Amino acid sequence: MEEAKVVLLGSRFSMFGMRAKIALAEKGIKYEYMEEDLTNKSPLLQEMNPIYKKIPVLIHHGRPICESLIIVEYIDMVWHNNSPLLPLDPYHKAQAKFWADFVDQKVYHASKRVWISKGDEQEVAKKNFLESLKHLEEFLGDKPYFGGETFGFVDVALIPFYCWFYTYETFGNFKVEAVCPKLISWAKRCMQKQSVFETLADEKEVYEAVLDYKTKFILN
Amino acid sequence: MEEAKVVLLGSRFSMFGMRAKIALAEKGIKYEYMEEDLTNKSPLLQEMNPIYKKIPVLIHHGRPICESLIIVEYIDMVWHNNSPLLPLDPYHKAQAKFWADFVDQKVYHASKRVWISKGDEQEVAKKNFLESLKHLEEFLGDKPYFGGETFGFVDVALIPFYCWFYTYETFGNFKVEAVCPKLISWAKRCMQKQSVFETLADEKEVYEAVLDYKTKFILN
Repeated sequence: MEEAKVVLLGSRFSMFGMRAKIALAEKGIKYEYMEEDLTNKSPLLQEMNPIYKKIPVLIHHGRPICESLIIVEYIDMVWHNNSPLLPLDPYHKAQAKFWADFVDQKVYHASKRVWISKGDEQEVAKKNFLESLKHLEEFLGDKPYFGGETFGFVDVALIPFYCWFYTYETFGNFKVEAVCPKLISWAKRCMQKQSVFETLADEKEVYEAVLDYKTKFILN
Repeated sequence: MEEAKVVLLGSRFSMFGMRAKIALAEKGIKYEYMEEDLTNKSPLLQEMNPIYKKIPVLIHHGRPICESLIIVEYIDMVWHNNSPLLPLDPYHKAQAKFWADFVDQKVYHASKRVWISKGDEQEVAKKNFLESLKHLEEFLGDKPYFGGETFGFVDVALIPFYCWFYTYETFGNFKVEAVCPKLISWAKRCMQKQSVFETLADEKEVYEAVLDYKTKFILN
């Protein structure tokens, strides 16, 4: 009954929560999913992640694991017999971690500024966002996945952003495909995987949720 | 001649560079150290870390590994036979990564604002800095090291900040020991290790360098 002890606290449109879901699906792990209302966080979330009080949190044997990339690596370590996500070779492992961290440091921050800001600040954000994707596209090269022949750690880290592209493109009035066609081919390839298409939110629903959030919380 | 192929690009007062030095010293690895002038970065640094152009960079067999925590983990993986830094158990490994990442996300950013800012902003930074250290002190508990009985990954991540405490305390007019006595005991314990005391910069020299930097680059 090992698998019955896995719980994931997530939020429907969070790309960080999606990372954990994809990793669990890749490994074929059954788990209990608990949706968090981020405007009214549960006592369980506050208890399990007292430092940041953020999702996702993976609870395994009653113990919390926090921060999405740490969760994905944990899942990869514990259920190491199928669908390995991180390479065993230290250099390639370090490379995968570097690029997954790059997604957090560069792609995420720029992408958020694309839909949250306006005017010159938005133009800078669009430029930074597309530049960060160009860097990733260069690292991808002609490989089918960032993990090489198989779907891996960087793929898990980046693919949830794909269901937000429509939102960035609509608010920012640009097309990622015009700048990064190979990255879009990669995303479509990932979307053929059950773990990905069953996890990613509908792009129109992401957009509606962002519109709703902006109306409620951001002065225009 | 494996060891002859290890090169570290660093900068004398960088806590991130110190992490790599301490990890290499813990493992007993001989390496070539190349000091970078951060106001005039070498072509080698720009070639080896084209994305961020930041130190530290570890070059092993001619291939670069960037980002200090990724470097420390790489060193731990490649030279795994002595002085293990990360636990093997997946949960404890995830915990170590969470707290090392916390040092980067919380301690570093708050500590920098302590010496770079003034007035209300500095007061907020002091509060955030001390709160982050309190969280770490709670996680340390009564263990001699963050790694438990032995010096480990979180110890490597945090101890370089100790030689900057004098600078934070002098600019911010406070004493870490008054708030976090156990953390200071831990730091003094770490300073008894050769890998640490031979790596950490002199606290007065750090302060002089920061004064010099502020005079040159920050308008008061």
